[in-house]
Amino acid sequence: MNLTEKTELFRSVFPFWDEMIERDRETFLRTSQTVSFSKGQCLHDGGECTGIILVRSGALRVYILSDEGKEITLYRVFAGELCILSASCVLDAITFDVYIDAEEDSNCVVVGGCALEDVSRRLPSAKIFTLETALGRFSDVMWVMQQILFMSMDKRLAIFLLDEAGKNGSDLITLTHEQIARYMGSAREVVSRMLKYFVSEGILSTSRSEGIRILDKKRLRALAT
Amino acid sequence: MNLTEKTELFRSVFPFWDEMIERDRETFLRTSQTVSFSKGQCLHDGGECTGIILVRSGALRVYILSDEGKEITLYRVFAGELCILSASCVLDAITFDVYIDAEEDSNCVVVGGCALEDVSRRLPSAKIFTLETALGRFSDVMWVMQQILFMSMDKRLAIFLLDEAGKNGSDLITLTHEQIARYMGSAREVVSRMLKYFVSEGILSTSRSEGIRILDKKRLRALAT
Repeated sequence: MNLTEKTELFRSVFPFWDEMIERDRETFLRTSQTVSFSKGQCLHDGGECTGIILVRSGALRVYILSDEGKEITLYRVFAGELCILSASCVLDAITFDVYIDAEEDSNCVVVGGCALEDVSRRLPSAKIFTLETALGRFSDVMWVMQQILFMSMDKRLAIFLLDEAGKNGSDLITLTHEQIARYMGSAREVVSRMLKYFVSEGILSTSRSEGIRILDKKRLRALAT
Repeated sequence: MNLTEKTELFRSVFPFWDEMIERDRETFLRTSQTVSFSKGQCLHDGGECTGIILVRSGALRVYILSDEGKEITLYRVFAGELCILSASCVLDAITFDVYIDAEEDSNCVVVGGCALEDVSRRLPSAKIFTLETALGRFSDVMWVMQQILFMSMDKRLAIFLLDEAGKNGSDLITLTHEQIARYMGSAREVVSRMLKYFVSEGILSTSRSEGIRILDKKRLRALAT
């Protein structure tokens, strides 16, 4: 990745790029590193400040981990997005630790936390961008939390899909989201969002032509119980 | 509450007060309202923008609510603190709904969301304050989530009882099992069973008239760690 490409990437990702003074831009360019991560590799494990991770290709998974090794996926970071919770030193308000794995082979650019912190102190728009990016993930996490804690929709949908599969003797379910919602007495949007979540977890695949296909029945059964 | 008192309150709560132009300060003072809430009263129920709530005395409880009426307490807002998640219109990044009850008789000052939003657009330090305040609660919520998802019930209940005792400066906890369950996002049966176990272990005593009394704080502390 040459300097021009990197500059273009930073300009597209950081809305405050052109407001930065030349010296700060140079620091960003000089201290940032292009890194490739293999599928399954751990990029960040809690405490230390790894920096801001810009995903160029692939996908990262951000999760929390219990003492007993139980994981809860909070959200994923896809190509073109950036991960800020890995830069704990930039965010005083964030006092919890997250773990980050490469969910696929991923090509990333890592910007040092200190570089952003330094700029954020002097440039309000950089600070605002940092805070807004982090706060956007708060909503993602709340959604996951509500699904898990109130334990209704994911369980109900898992049960419904297994019932349908059993009824038809096939792992293919040819109902529309609208039909499923109607059968379950829910809203189409809620069903679509949950199906999308199941797809992201590798439990299902969905396609317009085929319908819904169960890929991992074991995990679907675990959700249903 | 006269104008001088209100001005002093706002100056102490909003670090950007003196940076605001005179007209904005007047808007804050004119549109804000002193409101008293009785214990148990609902101040905010999801969608609508209620405004920023400054707690002068008492305490508020911020929680989420499932379709089936199950509650999870996210955090509490005490005297001198302010609640920003009630002002959804100020925070584009917040897409989830919270509910807020007065946990005790509470005296509050409510500042209109529009007033803060308007100032935040023009004054970066106001925007930064708003975002940082909201982001601080992200960490609170993550803590609750980890408690609920990862911790065993005995540990969680021990921590809860020690917290309550500490807050009230007394070994007597006058909450009902139902209330404890609601605060902990659990079921009453689960809490009652665990309390019964603690009693059988000689850690607590319970009585209908008095409530829950901590007898062996050392063992309760051991359970909590």
